Amino acid sequence: MTRLLLVNGNTSKTVTQKLLAEAERHAGANVQISAITARFGADLVSDRASNVIAGHAVLDAVAHHQDPYDAVLVAISLDTAVEALREVLSVPVVGMTEAACWQACLVSNRFGVVMPDRNTLPLYRERILNYGLRERLAGLRAIEATVQTHHAAPADSEAALRAAIMDLVVNEGSEAVVLAGASMTGLQRRLQPLVPVPLLDGIASGVILLEGLIRLNLPPSHVNGPYTTTLSGLSGPCTELLSGLPSARTSI
Amino acid sequence: MTRLLLVNGNTSKTVTQKLLAEAERHAGANVQISAITARFGADLVSDRASNVIAGHAVLDAVAHHQDPYDAVLVAISLDTAVEALREVLSVPVVGMTEAACWQACLVSNRFGVVMPDRNTLPLYRERILNYGLRERLAGLRAIEATVQTHHAAPADSEAALRAAIMDLVVNEGSEAVVLAGASMTGLQRRLQPLVPVPLLDGIASGVILLEGLIRLNLPPSHVNGPYTTTLSGLSGPCTELLSGLPSARTSI
Amino acid sequence: MTRLLLVNGNTSKTVTQKLLAEAERHAGANVQISAITARFGADLVSDRASNVIAGHAVLDAVAHHQDPYDAVLVAISLDTAVEALREVLSVPVVGMTEAACWQACLVSNRFGVVMPDRNTLPLYRERILNYGLRERLAGLRAIEATVQTHHAAPADSEAALRAAIMDLVVNEGSEAVVLAGASMTGLQRRLQPLVPVPLLDGIASGVILLEGLIRLNLPPSHVNGPYTTTLSGLSGPCTELLSGLPSARTSI
Amino acid sequence: MTRLLLVNGNTSKTVTQKLLAEAERHAGANVQISAITARFGADLVSDRASNVIAGHAVLDAVAHHQDPYDAVLVAISLDTAVEALREVLSVPVVGMTEAACWQACLVSNRFGVVMPDRNTLPLYRERILNYGLRERLAGLRAIEATVQTHHAAPADSEAALRAAIMDLVVNEGSEAVVLAGASMTGLQRRLQPLVPVPLLDGIASGVILLEGLIRLNLPPSHVNGPYTTTLSGLSGPCTELLSGLPSARTSI
Amino acid sequence: MTRLLLVNGNTSKTVTQKLLAEAERHAGANVQISAITARFGADLVSDRASNVIAGHAVLDAVAHHQDPYDAVLVAISLDTAVEALREVLSVPVVGMTEAACWQACLVSNRFGVVMPDRNTLPLYRERILNYGLRERLAGLRAIEATVQTHHAAPADSEAALRAAIMDLVVNEGSEAVVLAGASMTGLQRRLQPLVPVPLLDGIASGVILLEGLIRLNLPPSHVNGPYTTTLSGLSGPCTELLSGLPSARTSI
Amino acid sequence: MTRLLLVNGNTSKTVTQKLLAEAERHAGANVQISAITARFGADLVSDRASNVIAGHAVLDAVAHHQDPYDAVLVAISLDTAVEALREVLSVPVVGMTEAACWQACLVSNRFGVVMPDRNTLPLYRERILNYGLRERLAGLRAIEATVQTHHAAPADSEAALRAAIMDLVVNEGSEAVVLAGASMTGLQRRLQPLVPVPLLDGIASGVILLEGLIRLNLPPSHVNGPYTTTLSGLSGPCTELLSGLPSARTSI
Repeated sequence: MTRLLLVNGNTSKTVTQKLLAEAERHAGANVQISAITARFGADLVSDRASNVIAGHAVLDAVAHHQDPYDAVLVAISLDTAVEALREVLSVPVVGMTEAACWQACLVSNRFGVVMPDRNTLPLYRERILNYGLRERLAGLRAIEATVQTHHAAPADSEAALRAAIMDLVVNEGSEAVVLAGASMTGLQRRLQPLVPVPLLDGIASGVILLEGLIRLNLPPSHVNGPYTTTLSGLSGPCTELLSGLPSARTSI
Repeated sequence: MTRLLLVNGNTSKTVTQKLLAEAERHAGANVQISAITARFGADLVSDRASNVIAGHAVLDAVAHHQDPYDAVLVAISLDTAVEALREVLSVPVVGMTEAACWQACLVSNRFGVVMPDRNTLPLYRERILNYGLRERLAGLRAIEATVQTHHAAPADSEAALRAAIMDLVVNEGSEAVVLAGASMTGLQRRLQPLVPVPLLDGIASGVILLEGLIRLNLPPSHVNGPYTTTLSGLSGPCTELLSGLPSARTSI
Repeated sequence: MTRLLLVNGNTSKTVTQKLLAEAERHAGANVQISAITARFGADLVSDRASNVIAGHAVLDAVAHHQDPYDAVLVAISLDTAVEALREVLSVPVVGMTEAACWQACLVSNRFGVVMPDRNTLPLYRERILNYGLRERLAGLRAIEATVQTHHAAPADSEAALRAAIMDLVVNEGSEAVVLAGASMTGLQRRLQPLVPVPLLDGIASGVILLEGLIRLNLPPSHVNGPYTTTLSGLSGPCTELLSGLPSARTSI
Repeated sequence: MTRLLLVNGNTSKTVTQKLLAEAERHAGANVQISAITARFGADLVSDRASNVIAGHAVLDAVAHHQDPYDAVLVAISLDTAVEALREVLSVPVVGMTEAACWQACLVSNRFGVVMPDRNTLPLYRERILNYGLRERLAGLRAIEATVQTHHAAPADSEAALRAAIMDLVVNEGSEAVVLAGASMTGLQRRLQPLVPVPLLDGIASGVILLEGLIRLNLPPSHVNGPYTTTLSGLSGPCTELLSGLPSARTSI
Repeated sequence: MTRLLLVNGNTSKTVTQKLLAEAERHAGANVQISAITARFGADLVSDRASNVIAGHAVLDAVAHHQDPYDAVLVAISLDTAVEALREVLSVPVVGMTEAACWQACLVSNRFGVVMPDRNTLPLYRERILNYGLRERLAGLRAIEATVQTHHAAPADSEAALRAAIMDLVVNEGSEAVVLAGASMTGLQRRLQPLVPVPLLDGIASGVILLEGLIRLNLPPSHVNGPYTTTLSGLSGPCTELLSGLPSARTSI
Repeated sequence: MTRLLLVNGNTSKTVTQKLLAEAERHAGANVQISAITARFGADLVSDRASNVIAGHAVLDAVAHHQDPYDAVLVAISLDTAVEALREVLSVPVVGMTEAACWQACLVSNRFGVVMPDRNTLPLYRERILNYGLRERLAGLRAIEATVQTHHAAPADSEAALRAAIMDLVVNEGSEAVVLAGASMTGLQRRLQPLVPVPLLDGIASGVILLEGLIRLNLPPSHVNGPYTTTLSGLSGPCTELLSGLPSARTSI
């Protein structure tokens, strides 16, 4: 039995359910997925300040999760707090957009990224460049759909997405396209037949990469000396998680 | 009267007092500085996870500060949450290490960075590269002093710092050196006479840059469309700050 | 039943057997691996000219393989002809060093690479930089072991490898290390207990990434117009492979 | 009393007066500004060859200035000879475009640059990239206004500038915009109300940064060994300046 | 007497004759050029897989050439196998596109590249970036002409080329333009009068650079230790070439 | 008859004679070289300020040269004013260090640079990076020899140079090495037999590249609109050169 922990860094439980459903669709036979949701912050993070809050919320949600797990999928599309979780946990941790970009690199020379919400474009750009993927990123495009407009007129937002994808293919040389945005998960299945390049979804990509990392069974990276800081003002579970107490670093 | 708000993202009030003292030493005649301290997190942030927490703590501390201010100095040496604060406030915001690096660029072609605590070296490296300063960064060095060892044997840690600075000068071509780390603020005054290149301190640099930005009197950058997210689970002041309510975006 | 095709671009069948054994050790339950060997070229490629020959040999070997397969693992450590195979096949293709680097990026911020044979260091450097991984590559080290010296005195070459790994960790900030070189596959299992960072092997990494890509079930990237070139002087199977005849682009 | 020396590297005294007026508008209470003009070269430098001449003219003008000063503002928008002045003087030296870019980085994630005269666009591009600001530079735009056309129809050139600024904001993601070109100084005050991002002017930015650097009171960088070259054919003051005679390196 | 060996990595002998004629037009007085053609592969390489084959074909063609020569011009526009030939031969080796780019850098600050066949654009892009010329490459454009359409309506393809060149000049800031593609060699002579920037042809550029390298008379680079690999399955001449036997490394 | 103009941007006529002698040694049969010397500035430029002066001196020297010429070799090792000369002249212009680096790229994958005088190392570093050659530059080394010490004990400085070259080969992976510094021209002939990689000299490289560019017979790049600046305070010939009067743009 493999146990994945999916952490939605947004507070929307509707989105968590959607992410979980997509994750379960792609999970292997013996994989059980638990989904948890940020207990505070924005329902759908799309600015820098609520993304900072989401960092705490992701750590907090993981810290409060009692049951053991073998890997963590950070299911907020800015991959918030991924590196911090990797530091405090002993199990593999992957962010959903990171996962999609990595899979894109394995099937293309250069990939593009499409997202809803123009406000988030620079945030995705920075995140992907910070991963060191400048040479592989062909371009980014935002469509003007919100979750609301998408639900109101899905055909319209799908047409806009398809146009943005084709723009990335024809004008930027994208050989694959990442569909970014937690609220859009699953859309790749509808759009894939309409475009000539592979579409990558973060949840599908992440579940599969994590199952693989669990099989690789690597030890965590222990390059740092001991920490001597004192924590205060945090919940008990958060304090334990950051203190590196064994109980909080699960797998078994 | 100019009012600076200094936010220590570490929870150590001793450090806050030290930072405030250094800031006041460099502040102009009509400048009044208020210093606030993170209400939760690590006493001295030196790892990724407590830095994520510090992001929330910085926003929280600013949100809970009732009095008006004209600029914010983020006084945690990883410049935690600087971009997020810039997004939600209408006043200038500068991080202490960012400030030191920027001043270093104005007096040298390439600069180095010295810090206590080897664990933090990659975090500084990432932060400075994310500022886009790869071409200007000559190198980084960590000494093995903690605040404790520094207080126990200041001459030893100063000798180690001086050796690290000279290493950066001779072997990396550093023409200026940034002394990073909130706990080390003020040390540049003791070390400057002993080395042949200018030493930059984040608090001195930041106070001066902020006073200048206040005088430049620029409007904030309004490039984004309206945000439609819903916040939950946050304190009232934090919610106001992230919601962009005018009361929270001070300057008068 | 999932069928992987492992292509050794070196002509050494001993190495092929070793690679196949390592691949089978990491393969999933329903995975069947066929291993084929370059029919011409160098027994162990370590220079640019024989690597150019290996490119043809990899295509040739794949072209002559009659049975269907679902993915291809290019098991020559310079990942020779990976992009070309991706272009002509409809199934996922991954190179062994590419796979190890990708897995390294998912468990570390920056990774190092260790290899036998100083002559090949610049070739690995170029290959990894061409993948666009400059920001993630902490450093490279070569030890002076050949396969012969390794077999003659394995303890010596393991000690040298361990020293090189620790050099990458301590002096270059590597948080993970890729063990490169087809002839060294499997050594990561012996060395892992001796070092504080995860060690990545290309065969283990590649088998697992390919199984994941098969599950993702992405269509190939069709961004190019029709090709109008005429081929001559090649074997029938090679001509078919490059002509894009359906029979040669397998998966069923 | 703080004494700034403003050096116009163009030979146009009309421009010098304009630059001085703008500088005085932004200077602090106890700041006295002396403005000097290049004694030879182009009235408004806009090509590489006259920019080379302007380098000499800037050094020459500074060398011939007898009165002491505490900092130098290089008021030619290609920041000509800034690094050379920094080398031979003991006081802070800042270029006007460098100053504007630095201030832009403190208020935005990525900034754009607008300039009159298409011929100079590649020169600005090179200068800003040589500062190492590639990651922060969102784009550049030139309008086709000369000083003459601007004076003849200021509303037209302002409309063109505003359009170029909005193009940089909307299509390149610029969160701030630098108005480059000595002849355009002051225009930022008229255009600022018309655009949604902060506009940076080199003179305002430079005066303020220099006042700050004077307060920081850093020693010059002494990393080089003694120079042994012999100068000839230069004016006495220029020879003194380049020889490093104390009389020429002012501040007191 | 100087003897150049021109190697067409495409199998089209018509193209070889065209390349040889262009080379002879630019060769110096005492230069004798021998042209050889790939014995297998694509008539005009325009995809990754046939480019991989061309690598072998280039080495094979050179290996089978019995007469001595003083330098090699790799006359396939993706410069296939250039680095490998440099490794095994003792004489200068230059690729035609590399040569054109290098000459472009000597007459411009940034250059563009025009090519027939949209399919090859990413291949040129990668090749030129791999040369490290990112900073000098202003842009790339493909026209939709094939050799066939060019022969059928040369005026049309010339008009398309001219439009693409002007696009690179006006919109990308190209100060010179490389005409890429072996089949287009010589066209620069017809187009040069119609455009305001220098046009570079790979054959003209390469012949001239090679004559210069012969005069420089540099020793080859011997930085590697001895190779110990065993070759098999190759023709006798190829085996000799890769084994570094003196008979195969000509000049005399 | 081909006429090269060699411009020494240093004022030392002894160096000019040495440069001319080296140039003549490498020039082709029908090449006549005229050598001119900067009329003002440093005898051997090794700092930023005298390099700025040298820019004017190079333009001045060329402007005052009455006889026609077909190409210009800028024989000061920081390649001072090369781009400016290219802009105002109609004939090919190459800098000596640029020439050596370009030739190095044609015979190696990565090259190193050795120079006398530690003070100049950052200036060479900047110049070569500004050429966009970061990916090809393996490293730089300075020896502590001045022209004086070299003349006093040539064997010592040659031993130091050889050691620096071997350091670049062994520790930085340099496959070729540029010997930089006008005063060192010709030394490559003595050192070449002692090292295993090709050594590049700027004068030899430049003469040969220029002869090649003359044969390529490219038109100058005319991408700019008309200049409208007014010049003053310059000598008549300098004014003519910068005004673009045909008499000053020679070749015939």
